[in-house]
Amino acid sequence: MKVLVLGGDGYCGWPTALYLSDAEHEVVIVDNLIRRRWDKELGADSLTPIRSLEERIDAWLDVSGRRIDIEVGDLCDSEFARDVIDRHRPDAIVHYAEQRSAPYSMIDREHAVFTHENNLIGTLNLLFAIKELVPECHLIKLGTMGEYGQPNIDIEEGYIDIQHNGRSDRLPYPKQPGSFYHLTKVHDSHNIAFACRIWGLRATDLHQGVVYGTLTAQTERDPRLVNRFDYEGVFGTALNRFCVQAAISHPLTIYGKGGQTRGFLDIRDTVRCIELAMLNPADQGELRVYNQFTEQFSIRRIAELVTDAATKIGLETRIENLDNPRVELEEHYYNAKHTRLLDLGLQPHYLSDSLLDSLLNVALEYRDRVNHELIRPRVDWRTTADQAGPETEPAAVVA
Amino acid sequence: MKVLVLGGDGYCGWPTALYLSDAEHEVVIVDNLIRRRWDKELGADSLTPIRSLEERIDAWLDVSGRRIDIEVGDLCDSEFARDVIDRHRPDAIVHYAEQRSAPYSMIDREHAVFTHENNLIGTLNLLFAIKELVPECHLIKLGTMGEYGQPNIDIEEGYIDIQHNGRSDRLPYPKQPGSFYHLTKVHDSHNIAFACRIWGLRATDLHQGVVYGTLTAQTERDPRLVNRFDYEGVFGTALNRFCVQAAISHPLTIYGKGGQTRGFLDIRDTVRCIELAMLNPADQGELRVYNQFTEQFSIRRIAELVTDAATKIGLETRIENLDNPRVELEEHYYNAKHTRLLDLGLQPHYLSDSLLDSLLNVALEYRDRVNHELIRPRVDWRTTADQAGPETEPAAVVA
Repeated sequence: MKVLVLGGDGYCGWPTALYLSDAEHEVVIVDNLIRRRWDKELGADSLTPIRSLEERIDAWLDVSGRRIDIEVGDLCDSEFARDVIDRHRPDAIVHYAEQRSAPYSMIDREHAVFTHENNLIGTLNLLFAIKELVPECHLIKLGTMGEYGQPNIDIEEGYIDIQHNGRSDRLPYPKQPGSFYHLTKVHDSHNIAFACRIWGLRATDLHQGVVYGTLTAQTERDPRLVNRFDYEGVFGTALNRFCVQAAISHPLTIYGKGGQTRGFLDIRDTVRCIELAMLNPADQGELRVYNQFTEQFSIRRIAELVTDAATKIGLETRIENLDNPRVELEEHYYNAKHTRLLDLGLQPHYLSDSLLDSLLNVALEYRDRVNHELIRPRVDWRTTADQAGPETEPAAVVA
Repeated sequence: MKVLVLGGDGYCGWPTALYLSDAEHEVVIVDNLIRRRWDKELGADSLTPIRSLEERIDAWLDVSGRRIDIEVGDLCDSEFARDVIDRHRPDAIVHYAEQRSAPYSMIDREHAVFTHENNLIGTLNLLFAIKELVPECHLIKLGTMGEYGQPNIDIEEGYIDIQHNGRSDRLPYPKQPGSFYHLTKVHDSHNIAFACRIWGLRATDLHQGVVYGTLTAQTERDPRLVNRFDYEGVFGTALNRFCVQAAISHPLTIYGKGGQTRGFLDIRDTVRCIELAMLNPADQGELRVYNQFTEQFSIRRIAELVTDAATKIGLETRIENLDNPRVELEEHYYNAKHTRLLDLGLQPHYLSDSLLDSLLNVALEYRDRVNHELIRPRVDWRTTADQAGPETEPAAVVA
């Protein structure tokens, strides 16, 4: 199949592009390289020394003999979006091209607005271009488990059957997102549902959990193919961050009590889930939602698992509970369904098996590259600031 | 109380500003006058000869002795939003300042994107300014009954108690909006809920039905105070349009079968509902949702009522079923709750009593101003177009 990977230079996009190319799909990466600029803005860098997109592509050609095309541009530029789709006429589009950090979206008004414009307008432009040019193309959109928030009932996969006053209906699962970033994903979900209903497009919205790990069978084939690994307080997710903290003998920083429970998955499962969705497309007119994670853990439990694994290889760690910079329940019911990707054939990598092999060892390998000042949370949900003018420093970012 | 009426030059905003001023609140109208520019873009005009905002304000001072201040500017300009709130420090903000036409949002990609940017970014700027400057200010936001769509169960007021797998929770009512405009209102609802939860703001989201009529006790006091009355296919709502059609012996144009059922209310009830919400504010941290309408009718039934009333005054009318330009169910269950504003003291004006007095007679009075070419629907949901360039004509608008 011919597939565009939007955001194919990013943490999930890059290994997805390689995986799909390795599986003999015809892959085109579309990216505006903005993720690298955000690193600069934040004074941060990937733990792993990632190469330029051109070097990456050349390396993949060297080791695999397979070419991945690149289109550099911004989906918020509607003519670019239209032109790329017009020239490539893909069978499927994997859409990672969004600002995906909750803390980044909470820095201040400007970052909240940017996240809205970037994520919503890019996706709207995409929907219009698909409708106009390739209405049979299958859109595979990355959503997030965070769209659901923390309801006191089981979380279903996108829809819920509701009995009410003697009648019943299957309705979109109510969403209670917890950051401006998560809000944009909910907005996208509604917009895509509408486009499928009105125009007969077809889409799969993958509500993804917290991704951990950096290695895949493809990225391991050459050092130039190494994937990014974020550990700092803005783009680094909890498990990756804990591993880096263990590697540098920094306390594992739990926000609040740590009873916050989330779905997690190995990045090797992310790339496989994308292919499973691609090979089993939604029907025309259908927006399918799959919850894309393999195990659920509390943050406290994750910290304990990292501590145990670290101890085994002689690292001393301790846990530190920080004031929670987010506004969220710290002890709550959480039971999220995630059977639909398993039904399609997903065979999960479990955390217990990969913690040492693909997480702690990577953190150890690159620990000299860690910037210790960037590890603690730098953005507080409560103090997200309006701004007097564009020259002002982001008020919620404190080093 | 000191109140800002955002969008105070518009169809609901203007009579609201007058009503609140008449009730001795201190009123400031904030508006960028864009509604008048949309008329020009569409080659349309209010049926009633509305005056400039300055003339309106002067006339109100003449007849009432009460001054309404004006701030002309765009909420999408965050410095303007911040500055206005900083200087006026309102107790309440009534927020009508959004693009509110479903067909307008469906003209083409550019209009869909504009509606998203205008409505979402304006509201985000507002939320940040309130948080920073007047966190106790009560935000009264106009949403729409169209956020709910057409579920097969009763529609509650914003939230629904769900029993599921032996557990229960009160969750946001699932939304299935039917146009890009309606989608932006759903996005706003989620953003406002988040701001209330995270920052402790307080807000009332009035999910308003289809408003009809143009006269209020205040606008009737001087011809210069006349309110706008939209009848054309983009901004005109069904009931107002039917009255104009009856007045000029044009068939009443029903889209599809006409079994589409909606909540309706008289504009005199709109202005009263706003005051009721203002006088009974939400608690800090709370987003309250009220369904703001008084009666529900199918479009077919509305057409019959207009026909009957027109016949009484000697007008000949007939009904014409057009191909539905929208994508929606034309026969469906609809039962929407609307008790909370009644509980606060709303005494509704019912359609049966006002159809002749405040609707048909206004249409008759101004029938010479009707542009017959603008009455039929000009925007089709299915053909909403992407655009090759900014110079292209909106593809879905056909005269």
